[in-house]
Amino acid sequence: MKYLTSTLEIPIRFSETDAMGVVWHGNYLKFFEDAREHFGKIYGLDNLKIHDKGFFIPIVHSEINHKASLHYGEIAVVHSKLIYKESAKIIFEFEVINKSTEQIAATGSTTQVYLDAETRLLELTKPEFIIEWENKQNWNDEK
Amino acid sequence: MKYLTSTLEIPIRFSETDAMGVVWHGNYLKFFEDAREHFGKIYGLDNLKIHDKGFFIPIVHSEINHKASLHYGEIAVVHSKLIYKESAKIIFEFEVINKSTEQIAATGSTTQVYLDAETRLLELTKPEFIIEWENKQNWNDEK
Amino acid sequence: MKYLTSTLEIPIRFSETDAMGVVWHGNYLKFFEDAREHFGKIYGLDNLKIHDKGFFIPIVHSEINHKASLHYGEIAVVHSKLIYKESAKIIFEFEVINKSTEQIAATGSTTQVYLDAETRLLELTKPEFIIEWENKQNWNDEK
Amino acid sequence: MKYLTSTLEIPIRFSETDAMGVVWHGNYLKFFEDAREHFGKIYGLDNLKIHDKGFFIPIVHSEINHKASLHYGEIAVVHSKLIYKESAKIIFEFEVINKSTEQIAATGSTTQVYLDAETRLLELTKPEFIIEWENKQNWNDEK
Repeated sequence: MKYLTSTLEIPIRFSETDAMGVVWHGNYLKFFEDAREHFGKIYGLDNLKIHDKGFFIPIVHSEINHKASLHYGEIAVVHSKLIYKESAKIIFEFEVINKSTEQIAATGSTTQVYLDAETRLLELTKPEFIIEWENKQNWNDEK
Repeated sequence: MKYLTSTLEIPIRFSETDAMGVVWHGNYLKFFEDAREHFGKIYGLDNLKIHDKGFFIPIVHSEINHKASLHYGEIAVVHSKLIYKESAKIIFEFEVINKSTEQIAATGSTTQVYLDAETRLLELTKPEFIIEWENKQNWNDEK
Repeated sequence: MKYLTSTLEIPIRFSETDAMGVVWHGNYLKFFEDAREHFGKIYGLDNLKIHDKGFFIPIVHSEINHKASLHYGEIAVVHSKLIYKESAKIIFEFEVINKSTEQIAATGSTTQVYLDAETRLLELTKPEFIIEWENKQNWNDEK
Repeated sequence: MKYLTSTLEIPIRFSETDAMGVVWHGNYLKFFEDAREHFGKIYGLDNLKIHDKGFFIPIVHSEINHKASLHYGEIAVVHSKLIYKESAKIIFEFEVINKSTEQIAATGSTTQVYLDAETRLLELTKPEFIIEWENKQNWNDEK
């Protein structure tokens, strides 16, 4: 498995908590989005660049496993891992750590596909500029 | 003062509460939006129709006064009042009642203006179709 | 497989859309929450009753598959299916239909567990009042 | 007028935009909350400390004036100003600048009061620890 990683710290917002006193479960998808965004900035491939090239990359699948709660005042450390794929899919895996307890709060993943921004039709192969970008990266390799 | 009114019941969503166990204050702007939407449906002047006519109606001012809390499981009753204006402004006043306690949870208002959807420039006078719509309404009058 | 079903219509809120002009993907977890809530009301087993009995039922897993977009002005029809389980888990499956196009917008599922509200420890067996509730339901059966 | 200031940069999240392609107006209340939070950290008086002292500080009034839009990919620079008050009120004024255009996107304010965390009753005078904190600050003075 070839992959690239990045890490983002996200302080919990008060507005993200719910009446159980913890981060509302759906907000982890915001953390994942922030983490992808951050990954894009680090590796020079953000959403806006992808839009400029004529593509949308909507989420087609997302998944969260909750292990422990996060509270207001705590910091979520989100580790993102982009998994290299031959097919025209963008798959990220995430691990959210509670910085103070060092416990895993959640794991999860998202899958994105390429749509032509004009026709909104699915791209069956990776766009050329993506392949170029992939070739320039220094992928980790795990056997 | 000439005005039109409508009333909408909104059950509180769990995701709308915060760690204090009450509706997070910013969510009242969603209630106001839902209430405007509902008003539009009742009076035949919703956002989509306005967009079709070539206008955007962004919020330029909003204001909330909080009087009491709303909790998960309760129902917010939102009374909306569209105030008739000579100028090209859409002003709504809102009163949010906690259905179970009959207490006022909040009052507030929003102001919208007309933008040309193409140029995004401010309209200084009311669009023609708005004046026609206004003429057809049966306004309440308060002295 | 034994199951119970319910259906909820959710008009899309403007605040739920994103800059691609469609419902932001994370908001489907709000739809799922609303749908569980609605299910609870229909079958007499809502979150507040469960809290009163001394239990929290946090989400431990959630999953969404996106098939098509939902837009402002459209109505999401959410079909919920509670799957009967021997173990102390609450598993819902969801199907979100775009009412105007009759297309599937998304499918998904959530898994909840029982926590003791005091100790916040996991319950390994179903609470007694849940078993009583289950026995009173008229389950659909599919072979 | 005596006041203290702080400044926070907030990159716009994709999930914060709406179908008009701009930040949904209600999200500015999240920016204000983040800005108050940041102010609290800088001046050593955050919400959690206030809770520990036995007080809640709910928002009783909030107000936003929108001047220009913010888009995904842009950075909001939020200038916060805590206004010194003799009465038991916490008043913040905000200015949100679009970092790339240097335009004012919005101005606004929030008012908070002190509630006893146990009784949830309004405090008519400032808590002692707040007066001590105020005395230690190096207030700006404007005539």
